[in-house]
Amino acid sequence: MRVSEIDTPAVLIDVEILERNVRRAAEHCRKHHVALRPHIKTHKMPPLAHVQIEAGAVGISVAKLGEAEVMADAGIQDLLVAYPIVGAAKLRRLASLAERARVTVALDSFEVAEGVDRAARDAGREIGVLVEVDSGTARCGVAPEELPALCRRIAGLRHARWHGVMTYQGYITGDPETRERLMREENGRVNGLLDRLERDGLRPKVVSGASTPNLDLCQLLERVNENRSGTYVFNDRNTVNSGSVRWEDCALRVAVTVVSTAVPGQIIIDGGSKTFTSDRAAGSADASFGRIVEDPTLQLVKMNEEHGFVQAEGAARPKLGDRLHLIPNHVCVVVNMHDQVYLHRGDEVIDCWPVAARGKVR
Amino acid sequence: MRVSEIDTPAVLIDVEILERNVRRAAEHCRKHHVALRPHIKTHKMPPLAHVQIEAGAVGISVAKLGEAEVMADAGIQDLLVAYPIVGAAKLRRLASLAERARVTVALDSFEVAEGVDRAARDAGREIGVLVEVDSGTARCGVAPEELPALCRRIAGLRHARWHGVMTYQGYITGDPETRERLMREENGRVNGLLDRLERDGLRPKVVSGASTPNLDLCQLLERVNENRSGTYVFNDRNTVNSGSVRWEDCALRVAVTVVSTAVPGQIIIDGGSKTFTSDRAAGSADASFGRIVEDPTLQLVKMNEEHGFVQAEGAARPKLGDRLHLIPNHVCVVVNMHDQVYLHRGDEVIDCWPVAARGKVR
Repeated sequence: MRVSEIDTPAVLIDVEILERNVRRAAEHCRKHHVALRPHIKTHKMPPLAHVQIEAGAVGISVAKLGEAEVMADAGIQDLLVAYPIVGAAKLRRLASLAERARVTVALDSFEVAEGVDRAARDAGREIGVLVEVDSGTARCGVAPEELPALCRRIAGLRHARWHGVMTYQGYITGDPETRERLMREENGRVNGLLDRLERDGLRPKVVSGASTPNLDLCQLLERVNENRSGTYVFNDRNTVNSGSVRWEDCALRVAVTVVSTAVPGQIIIDGGSKTFTSDRAAGSADASFGRIVEDPTLQLVKMNEEHGFVQAEGAARPKLGDRLHLIPNHVCVVVNMHDQVYLHRGDEVIDCWPVAARGKVR
Repeated sequence: MRVSEIDTPAVLIDVEILERNVRRAAEHCRKHHVALRPHIKTHKMPPLAHVQIEAGAVGISVAKLGEAEVMADAGIQDLLVAYPIVGAAKLRRLASLAERARVTVALDSFEVAEGVDRAARDAGREIGVLVEVDSGTARCGVAPEELPALCRRIAGLRHARWHGVMTYQGYITGDPETRERLMREENGRVNGLLDRLERDGLRPKVVSGASTPNLDLCQLLERVNENRSGTYVFNDRNTVNSGSVRWEDCALRVAVTVVSTAVPGQIIIDGGSKTFTSDRAAGSADASFGRIVEDPTLQLVKMNEEHGFVQAEGAARPKLGDRLHLIPNHVCVVVNMHDQVYLHRGDEVIDCWPVAARGKVR
């Protein structure tokens, strides 16, 4: 089957670019003695998690237990659930998961840690704990000054096992000089945190960091020994805009078809927010919901669920039935909208993978 | 099972409100001799389509062939695909669909109509055609002055059958007086269109209109004899803001749990853009991604995929593990993110339905 024979909208993965992205990240982390534990929220597909592990990843990161369960079902043995597990139903599932895989969870409160401790007791297995520290994104994570006390309390639990600290550098983007400066500053902050822990006799086995826009400089965080980057497998408009990769590093495109040219000055494509999501591009001057590969001057300026509005006039205006390809703004959320993706080498479709962990919100 | 025992995030449907919404719309349309053909993009669930048909709907509207196929598989016999069918793969599926259900499609070009004509020929069945006219949303639809010529050409096709015209009144929102004035203006425009068609000897059997924010005034469009409203089954923040329904008419809520309170001045809930989508509220002064039922002064101001950021301070600040319920901004896109919904009467969960036509982008 040829790529052009796939009906639209469809998610296409260029396997050559994908393999190069996976290899490059693995080699970089290996060279700098950083354990790569990719976040699979980007792809949600067990076969791709296996590709990452075969290339050298030590395990994977997931956001939700439902994703962890899909990956464990597919034989992935080492899982970090980088999200606080709250509530009786989820703790039962965590215990069950721990019986069949090596599991670590990230959290930011002693209350959540106590639940994990009970789950570990029920499972009769160790469950690792990373304490999330707020690295400046003000999302989850304890304040740096509260980190030692919380780590100490968790280290005293009987069944859960304190493994270390989780940081996140998602805000570090920009040109190489800017990123290098920010990473060196972040290195100072992380070293300060770890020094304080060590003064308290707390020696973390794992210091976890991320993300894709600064993966190429992860070695600048001298004591961060694990990296959870995810987006690097596919890349997207955001990662290109963040300054660390090029358009040629984008492995995923969405194929769409022009279905209406009735209104002057625009065309309607058969992908809207149900195909692309409404996520805007970070750090971009324009409001387009993706880069149109055939003509990057065209803008996907507006969407309804099934209608994409592309401004287009004159000779540049695609015709009814024309096929276009878009590099999405934020690739992780796009993959989550689709039941399957098509893998191709050049023009030949070589496989179709279900997005097995799609929609696992719990 | 109690509602409070369902793990979060979860989509909850209050069956009493749902039934009242379905009944009210059906009675209103029956009273005014308007055929109700609800758009199932809102719910994507065959059992609910059957509830609508049992209440009096003449059939359903869908956006994509994939949705139509799911509904035909479930025994729905009369389908309007309110979207241009473009490309060989889709025309084959359209022919196949026409062999097992009564199918009408909406389109806005003769080129698309020719494809539908071939599909009808291949199926050996009539396929109805509505010509979409641009009612002012500038999405799909021919300009009013081009409508007669296109209808005439399509009426001359051998296998496709011209049934009439599709309009859309989604832009008509506001207080009752405003809506009434806008609907009367729209009535004049539609009458003008139809008069022009009739002068050309074209008598449409179907004149289709919508949407939920003006469903209660659909009788003001004197010659619109079919209504495609969809959102009325559940309603949402947008329909309440549009002025036509109240919070008590909102049948769908999303249950979430507080998973982090580590950062001062906010809480993190376990639903983000993968639960709610990033759709902003239309016509709302605030930027919240939903109305928090327990305390509508709280705002869901920001989301990552799995993290919802709710501003909350002082006594109003929910605690770790607390459960909150949100009425989403745009209910159709929220349902599309979830694999199943839970139906409840009062506090008792009475059923769980798969969202069978979820994610059907093709």
